[in-house]
Amino acid sequence: MKSLRLRTIVSPTPVVIVAAFDKNGKADACTLAFYMPSSHHPPCVTIGINATAKRKTLKSILSSGAFSVGYPSADQVSVADFLGIGSGEDGNKLATVNWTFTTAEKVHAPIINEIPLSLECRVINTVTPGGHTLITGEIMNIVASPGVLDEKGRIIMEKFHPIIYDEEQRRYLVCGEKIADAFSVGLPLLDKFKK
Amino acid sequence: MKSLRLRTIVSPTPVVIVAAFDKNGKADACTLAFYMPSSHHPPCVTIGINATAKRKTLKSILSSGAFSVGYPSADQVSVADFLGIGSGEDGNKLATVNWTFTTAEKVHAPIINEIPLSLECRVINTVTPGGHTLITGEIMNIVASPGVLDEKGRIIMEKFHPIIYDEEQRRYLVCGEKIADAFSVGLPLLDKFKK
Repeated sequence: MKSLRLRTIVSPTPVVIVAAFDKNGKADACTLAFYMPSSHHPPCVTIGINATAKRKTLKSILSSGAFSVGYPSADQVSVADFLGIGSGEDGNKLATVNWTFTTAEKVHAPIINEIPLSLECRVINTVTPGGHTLITGEIMNIVASPGVLDEKGRIIMEKFHPIIYDEEQRRYLVCGEKIADAFSVGLPLLDKFKK
Repeated sequence: MKSLRLRTIVSPTPVVIVAAFDKNGKADACTLAFYMPSSHHPPCVTIGINATAKRKTLKSILSSGAFSVGYPSADQVSVADFLGIGSGEDGNKLATVNWTFTTAEKVHAPIINEIPLSLECRVINTVTPGGHTLITGEIMNIVASPGVLDEKGRIIMEKFHPIIYDEEQRRYLVCGEKIADAFSVGLPLLDKFKK
């Protein structure tokens, strides 16, 4: 084993677009790679936003108590990249890309109409252990374009191509091929373990 | 837009294997999909472990104050699946799969020798906003098999195939093709924004 230079994102991580209303009711959005599912009951996700930099979305989330998490599709990668570079303090990023929004049904946050899958979240916890504020939101609603669903109402990668960020090579990827069934391929080892 | 049944993992998320020593110095590991990079300065990651279920690794991390995060490769998917199903309370999971470990250089946690890329983390914060305890660890060291690095010491997907979990279709995936360069493909929109 070889020790590497310290850094944070060593392996690919999902790209999400977080949106919120500021105190004046203006919608803003920014792209993040600091995101995770964080609870099943209640359903929650956690996002991390740089607390030391100029991040309008962080202020908006803290003042409004709500946010949306959007999962952009591969054909939206240029917009996703831009929304992670520009700051909402410097202008209206959504207008620049001609994206529109609707107010979420269950929380006071914008849902971006162009994004095929979004969560409506209400803030239930914030903590700043390092340089980023980690915001946990309870998922109050999930909205999807019918075009990304299979016949059982499940999201299907053949119709929806989420973006993955590979910081090591500074590039965006899509998901690749299936390698195994989950909670299935390990069952022979579970049998061995139980003996 | 269509409202979907509430759930937590709507889009693919990385799979990691977290390892820790229990109070008796025994190593255990479990597979998680609740994981994110969470700070650049200091470098941190955050993991989430079910606080309401029988999770030996959670107890071990809380008592030892340290853990490792391993990124398994696609050819280890059976082991990764098993380590997420079986509980360390019921036996020695690492022995079942014939995996070995070394004590980390910088923290009191096991590094699994078979995993090509691992972080050594010391716990700096814990919080339980929902059903899972979110543990933030400062990355004290990163170790990698030289075989997964390119000539510049960066991790390269052509040699290392991290596993992605797609809960919607209950399957594991690998990363797919590059679709764009990061902090680059959005620059024309940034130019438009600045005008």
